[in-house]
Amino acid sequence: MTTITPVLLCGGSGTRLWPLSRKSYPKQFVPLMGEETLFQASARRLHGRGLGPDGDLGFASPLVLTNADFRFIVTEQLGLAGIDPRAVLIEPEGRNTAPAILAAASYLVASDPEAVMLVAPSDHVVPDAASFYAAVAQGLGPVREGRLVTFGIAPTHAETGYGYLELEGPVDDGAPQPLTRFVEKPDLGRAEDMLASGNFLWNAGIFMARAADMVAAFREHGPEILGPVEAALAQAKTDLGFLRLDPASWATAPDISIDYAVMEKAPNLSVVPFSGEWSDLGGWDAVWRESGPDESGVVTSQGATAIDCRDTLLRSESDRLEIVGIGLENVMAIAMNDAVLVADMSRAQDVKKAVEALKAKQSPQATAFPKDHRPWGWFESLVIGGRFQVKRIMVHPGAALSLQSHHHRSEHWIVVEGTARVTIDDEVKLVTENQSVYVPLGAVHRMENPGKVPMVLIEVQTGAYVGEDDIVRYEDVYARN
Amino acid sequence: MTTITPVLLCGGSGTRLWPLSRKSYPKQFVPLMGEETLFQASARRLHGRGLGPDGDLGFASPLVLTNADFRFIVTEQLGLAGIDPRAVLIEPEGRNTAPAILAAASYLVASDPEAVMLVAPSDHVVPDAASFYAAVAQGLGPVREGRLVTFGIAPTHAETGYGYLELEGPVDDGAPQPLTRFVEKPDLGRAEDMLASGNFLWNAGIFMARAADMVAAFREHGPEILGPVEAALAQAKTDLGFLRLDPASWATAPDISIDYAVMEKAPNLSVVPFSGEWSDLGGWDAVWRESGPDESGVVTSQGATAIDCRDTLLRSESDRLEIVGIGLENVMAIAMNDAVLVADMSRAQDVKKAVEALKAKQSPQATAFPKDHRPWGWFESLVIGGRFQVKRIMVHPGAALSLQSHHHRSEHWIVVEGTARVTIDDEVKLVTENQSVYVPLGAVHRMENPGKVPMVLIEVQTGAYVGEDDIVRYEDVYARN
Repeated sequence: MTTITPVLLCGGSGTRLWPLSRKSYPKQFVPLMGEETLFQASARRLHGRGLGPDGDLGFASPLVLTNADFRFIVTEQLGLAGIDPRAVLIEPEGRNTAPAILAAASYLVASDPEAVMLVAPSDHVVPDAASFYAAVAQGLGPVREGRLVTFGIAPTHAETGYGYLELEGPVDDGAPQPLTRFVEKPDLGRAEDMLASGNFLWNAGIFMARAADMVAAFREHGPEILGPVEAALAQAKTDLGFLRLDPASWATAPDISIDYAVMEKAPNLSVVPFSGEWSDLGGWDAVWRESGPDESGVVTSQGATAIDCRDTLLRSESDRLEIVGIGLENVMAIAMNDAVLVADMSRAQDVKKAVEALKAKQSPQATAFPKDHRPWGWFESLVIGGRFQVKRIMVHPGAALSLQSHHHRSEHWIVVEGTARVTIDDEVKLVTENQSVYVPLGAVHRMENPGKVPMVLIEVQTGAYVGEDDIVRYEDVYARN
Repeated sequence: MTTITPVLLCGGSGTRLWPLSRKSYPKQFVPLMGEETLFQASARRLHGRGLGPDGDLGFASPLVLTNADFRFIVTEQLGLAGIDPRAVLIEPEGRNTAPAILAAASYLVASDPEAVMLVAPSDHVVPDAASFYAAVAQGLGPVREGRLVTFGIAPTHAETGYGYLELEGPVDDGAPQPLTRFVEKPDLGRAEDMLASGNFLWNAGIFMARAADMVAAFREHGPEILGPVEAALAQAKTDLGFLRLDPASWATAPDISIDYAVMEKAPNLSVVPFSGEWSDLGGWDAVWRESGPDESGVVTSQGATAIDCRDTLLRSESDRLEIVGIGLENVMAIAMNDAVLVADMSRAQDVKKAVEALKAKQSPQATAFPKDHRPWGWFESLVIGGRFQVKRIMVHPGAALSLQSHHHRSEHWIVVEGTARVTIDDEVKLVTENQSVYVPLGAVHRMENPGKVPMVLIEVQTGAYVGEDDIVRYEDVYARN
């Protein structure tokens, strides 16, 4: 039995799947394909034992690399998936993949230099897990010989959005092969040539190696990264179960990808081809393709209706929202309660322009997700009026909001699910479904969920100003300011 | 000074402007162009004195024909526009235009046989009121001679969606001309021929006549309509200020348009051409055209952003909803919080298929508007959970909900604007902004707005069932069941 430690990278936040993916809640945390989020699906794929063609492949608890904003989303989603992480490392800022992967490798080496790590982005779709395990099993041979393995995807079309891996000869499905060179994202003609030659694979950013070999590769090819990352790890602080890498040291690490930093230079690199279905869902056109268009090329979600459409994606992201398309061709339309995107399918890579345009007009929809995820749960604003706001607030079992007060608003809380423990000035009481409490302006208050099930309450704020920044925090179990 | 009584027809409910126009709240009541609704704009156009080229044209208070579902919308919107109707006649069911116009004529004849009536649909757009008044002034000559006048619109394109009026010779702008014949909606070739000939006008369904002459025309050409309509009027009941035509008599009136019933047969018909801008907004393409597309053919509302689009309409119908279009051509997209339409511009007349499709899947968005208008104001559902629902409720000054109770839910009410008078069993109290009350399951309760400004409250319902039909009404000032 070989046990592999998954290293899940989930600190990124792209804009190409706006409005579903936003800076505050990017695509890996969204149920883009099916019920699970991409992050959950990735964690679940790299979980379990008795896997692979011979049943001798198993995964240890995953190491997760993310940033401070997403740390509670990570633990919440892993919790819901029933997966307990070995550690969640917090990158103080994004420095691309090289420092993150080195941090993971160094962390593992400290307890077990022989540990085998499998590094994977957490926003890819790999529908056929069994064939992926077969590729992983193929990769273990070279890994045991001290080689670094990168998985290359057998291309299905002349894609210009990916980098490529060139092999010495034709792709031999499943067999590890030495790499000739990395190829940058090509133009269409070059992509067509590469597809035709049969010697090229897509570079998917999935790597496997012994942790010690990974560190050794950095020592040889990227020594300037080693110092800052090892210092950031040595001075890391444990905080509510997260391992926060030291920001000062981390800031001195080069901002560089692992390909540039190490892989392109390493002589001990092997490529394992993977010819199963794979997508990085790099745009709504990819989501359309991966969702299995019908014979007219139409993909519709629950709540979406297509009439006389061709090659069209129609998605409703809310159970109280209907979208109807009529006579559309090559259109993708994604509707949420607060934002709608309608674009020609060929413009999938321009969706970031929508985000830029909304940023320019200072629209919150550019970056903020309707559900605002916090360490204790989430809230969403249901309606804002002249002097009032109504929110739905969900608090996880055992979680608590900070002890706080407001200068400009009073609040009515009505519990509609579960039980809340409420502190108002010197009084503490339990408030259960169909009960309400009133928090006067200026009162020092806190809301907690002492129960075993989620607690949901409706908050009605009244006052001259109902912005999020009217808050004085006295005490916060999540160490926020 | 000639005083004309406007007769506003607003009982219809089309589906071609879905999702903004729905059966429960059709397009004439929606602010489709600018701040006012089409109904308000129509009422205001036919309002005032000292109008027309010589300043000797004036309008009396309007007579409104609508149906029972829309009666409170009519009075609310007229109230907001500062217009007091002479009467609001309720058609028990839609029987097309002939019975409705005859009912209005007979109603007017009873008090003044010389009364001049101007019949107009309430969902048309006529941006240049002054030139419309000039046409009306032109029409008064023939009306004084006992003729029936119909206004014909000078065509701007070969439209296949309208009927046409054929004149004996070329259109003489502004001068009344005798009609040769009515022409049914043509095919495109025929429409092009008519446009080229210069002898044709669009039939806009706008008529003017002395009330007595209108009744006389029915007596001569449509006697089978006269009996039922006069009986429905004779047995009409006054109800909260509305005049409800007698349903049994009304049901025996033929379902027929005034063109078929009378106008095509009347020898005393004159046509007054109107060459000002006019539209019946018969589809989203017409809304696009009337909204003044920019040099790329793009129309965007507040909350809509077009990137590299051509000949495209993008509308957001909510101040908390952004819509972004990228690379679209000939597309119209209309986004509301509960429903989104995306269609090719050429398919404007197929929008009714969207409504049919949603009806087939029993989606409330097919017919119900998110704001549910009631005699006392309106409400909207903000969120529905497993055992709760949150509503925003607006009550007009002086209005009251029925005295009621529920079997399955209790309610928390938090007033956020204005003051409510609340009855709960034997207790009556005033509840003002930032105060709340609790209505236990089974309690007999009522909410009123005793004040001079609108009252808004947030209602949080909790219980096993939160449907609208869990209601027992004890007393209702609006005589509902």
